[in-house]
Amino acid sequence: MENTTPPATHRPRILITNDDGIAAKGLQHLADFVADFGEVRVVAPDSARSGQSGAITVNVPLRLTPQPSRGGIDFYSCNGTPVDCIKLALHCFRDFRPDLILSGINHGHNAAISILYSGTMGAVLEGCVVGVPSIGFSLCSHDADADFAPSREIVREICRNVLADGLPPKVCLNVNIPVAPARGIRVCRQARGHWSEEYTAHPAPNGSTDYRLAGFFVNEEPDARDTDEYFLAEGYASVVPCTYDQTAHDVISAMCRRFDR
Amino acid sequence: MENTTPPATHRPRILITNDDGIAAKGLQHLADFVADFGEVRVVAPDSARSGQSGAITVNVPLRLTPQPSRGGIDFYSCNGTPVDCIKLALHCFRDFRPDLILSGINHGHNAAISILYSGTMGAVLEGCVVGVPSIGFSLCSHDADADFAPSREIVREICRNVLADGLPPKVCLNVNIPVAPARGIRVCRQARGHWSEEYTAHPAPNGSTDYRLAGFFVNEEPDARDTDEYFLAEGYASVVPCTYDQTAHDVISAMCRRFDR
Repeated sequence: MENTTPPATHRPRILITNDDGIAAKGLQHLADFVADFGEVRVVAPDSARSGQSGAITVNVPLRLTPQPSRGGIDFYSCNGTPVDCIKLALHCFRDFRPDLILSGINHGHNAAISILYSGTMGAVLEGCVVGVPSIGFSLCSHDADADFAPSREIVREICRNVLADGLPPKVCLNVNIPVAPARGIRVCRQARGHWSEEYTAHPAPNGSTDYRLAGFFVNEEPDARDTDEYFLAEGYASVVPCTYDQTAHDVISAMCRRFDR
Repeated sequence: MENTTPPATHRPRILITNDDGIAAKGLQHLADFVADFGEVRVVAPDSARSGQSGAITVNVPLRLTPQPSRGGIDFYSCNGTPVDCIKLALHCFRDFRPDLILSGINHGHNAAISILYSGTMGAVLEGCVVGVPSIGFSLCSHDADADFAPSREIVREICRNVLADGLPPKVCLNVNIPVAPARGIRVCRQARGHWSEEYTAHPAPNGSTDYRLAGFFVNEEPDARDTDEYFLAEGYASVVPCTYDQTAHDVISAMCRRFDR
């Protein structure tokens, strides 16, 4: 199959967003890391939008607000979700059809099933739907002041590769990067797992109870040696090729026998 | 492979949510349609949460508020997203481990790539992650007062089947139902497509512009005869088996050659 994008014949245009908001350190680092690869434009939420998944804003008008440029890079804030940022940038910047969409660098790990909840990856899947090679980057640290320097070469190497050769149709990348300098890069699959004990309970007025998100991730296949969880634990950066096609193709025949009528 | 759930030996417990909110007509109809199949409990957002995808509420405490029961069915409203509703119900109702999770009936079509943005399907994927057979139902009409009666037998037939035989591991169902009585049921795959011309522009204060969501869906494979878009246009209810595993397994080897080091 043909890849989504042939090598660009112009100076590549790179659109960047994130879900931690326009002030996040990881966003600035991502823009800086790829600044010499082409023309970079940042459109990011005006505040943190963690956990926003592929959410879109339905009933509130959206607005793009130009910010002071930083190091020659144009920044815009948006009052919507990460997916809104991508949609609105593609809609408004007709002269800036991106060759590459990047999201991150997220402050926190987005491996395994986190792709379901991740605003970082929501934006990446949106880029994938519209046929732009798209990559999400996440650092395995929630620290707002985390050290992103060791992720620089990983980010640059993967972006250079994708700018040169594109990605297969319907495929984007979910890249997670360990805090310590990575031993290398491993392409792998999403680990199966779920979150457990997800809330803490707190007394609220009128005998009610407030529940605050907490909990921990349970890896359901701790012995598997081909998952993102495994390679991250081994000190590698994990690269999961992801698709927005959520059809479970392998069970269609069996399901036809059960349901077709 | 074993299905996720053996036939229940007790009276089945059915947990229902939606993304149109607790007052939506489609929610009440879904609960009524399956009321005689077991013990039904509804936990739904306190207001409309369309477009919320798999979003979770990170920084606001969540609360479940009991509502007057309707026709013997317990209703709870929640101040969170559809995924929050499922997570919180599973956390709080330890005596109500569901045998089936349902979401809908959505007022509006959720075929093709709508699964990316759909709060209805966000809740279904959440149920799938925790190993409960889960089904999303959507009616192809955005009318708040739509006629759900013709969807009754479709809903009951599919739920009866899944309660009896479960679903394969990591698989849930995305069911879309035409407005007119369906010619039948067809299991199929998600159509490839995207939204186009997504916003209308409106002047805003200070020379700024407000963008409101609009646009139309572009089916990128109008000649395909095995997609949900095709079968809906032909007057069938579409059933897409979906998975939360977004790994593009078929490209892992090729991606390893490009990125592993």
